Amino acid sequence: MSKAQAFLHNWLRHRLVLVELVNAFPEEHLDYKPYEKAMSLKELVLHTVMSADSFIETVKRGELVRSYELGKPQVETMEDLRKLVHDVTEKNKTDITGLSEEAFVKLVDVSKIFGTSLSGEAILHIMRDHEIHHKGQLFVYARLIGMEEVPLFVKRDL
Amino acid sequence: MSKAQAFLHNWLRHRLVLVELVNAFPEEHLDYKPYEKAMSLKELVLHTVMSADSFIETVKRGELVRSYELGKPQVETMEDLRKLVHDVTEKNKTDITGLSEEAFVKLVDVSKIFGTSLSGEAILHIMRDHEIHHKGQLFVYARLIGMEEVPLFVKRDL
Repeated sequence: MSKAQAFLHNWLRHRLVLVELVNAFPEEHLDYKPYEKAMSLKELVLHTVMSADSFIETVKRGELVRSYELGKPQVETMEDLRKLVHDVTEKNKTDITGLSEEAFVKLVDVSKIFGTSLSGEAILHIMRDHEIHHKGQLFVYARLIGMEEVPLFVKRDL
Repeated sequence: MSKAQAFLHNWLRHRLVLVELVNAFPEEHLDYKPYEKAMSLKELVLHTVMSADSFIETVKRGELVRSYELGKPQVETMEDLRKLVHDVTEKNKTDITGLSEEAFVKLVDVSKIFGTSLSGEAILHIMRDHEIHHKGQLFVYARLIGMEEVPLFVKRDL
C-alpha cells in the first residue's frame, strides 16, 4: 500500500465519523455554543474541515497555505454545512490519493505556524490529530444538544 | 530512533497536555458533569489513562489486558487524580521505552474488543487516538467549569 493510500485510510476512519455526526445534528442547533466564548457548532465543524483542507493543500503544493486563503465558506443552514463537509471531504480524498511518495518526505516551510519546516507526513499527522481533538469536542456538543445516540469515535470496519 | 522511542515521543506530545490540564483543574470540579449521563471529569480522566495503560500492557504482554484487570484506582480528591495520572504516566513511559521492535509487529489477539488480531503498533495507535479524542472532550469540560486559560492541544517543543 502506498503512503498516500495508508494515510487516506487512517484519516477516513475519523473523517467518516465526523460526516456521520454532522449528518445527525438537528437543524436548529447550527449556532449552538456550550459557553459564551466557545466556537459555535457550525464554527467548530468549519474550523476542523477547513484546517484539514489547508494542511492537505500545504502538502500538495509544497508551501504553507492558510485556511483563509481557501475562501470563506457560505454556510447558513445545517444542510449547507453537511454539503460543505461532504464536498471538502471528497476533494480531500482526491488530493490525498494524488500525493506522491516524495510529498510525504519533502520538507515544507511551515515556520509561520509551527516555527520550523516539517515533512509532508508530519503535517498530515498533525492535521489528523487536530481533527480527532475537535471531533472529540463535537461529541460533547452532540450530547449537550440532546443527542442520545452518537457513533463510536472511530470507524472499525473500513 | 527506535520504534519505541518514536512512539513515546509522539504519544507524550499529547499525554503531557493531559497532565497539564489535570494539574490545572480546580479542586471542586472533580465530579463535574456537563450533562446527566456524562462521565464526570474524574471518570473521563480515569477512563482515558486507564484505557491507555491497558492497551500498553496488552502490547507488553502480547495478550489482551482489560482495564478492570489492572485494579480500580482509589481517587477521592483532585490531588489523588493528579498523583494517579502522574504515576501511571511514569509507568507507561517505562513500559513503552522497554518495548522491543518485535512487539510493534507481533499480532496480538484483541478480537474480544476489536473483532480481530492487531499488531502492537496498531494497538498503540488506537490508544493514542482514543486519548486525543477524550482529551479534546476534557478541553470542553475545562471551559465549562470556567477555566479561561487552557494549553494548546499538543506539545510542540518536546
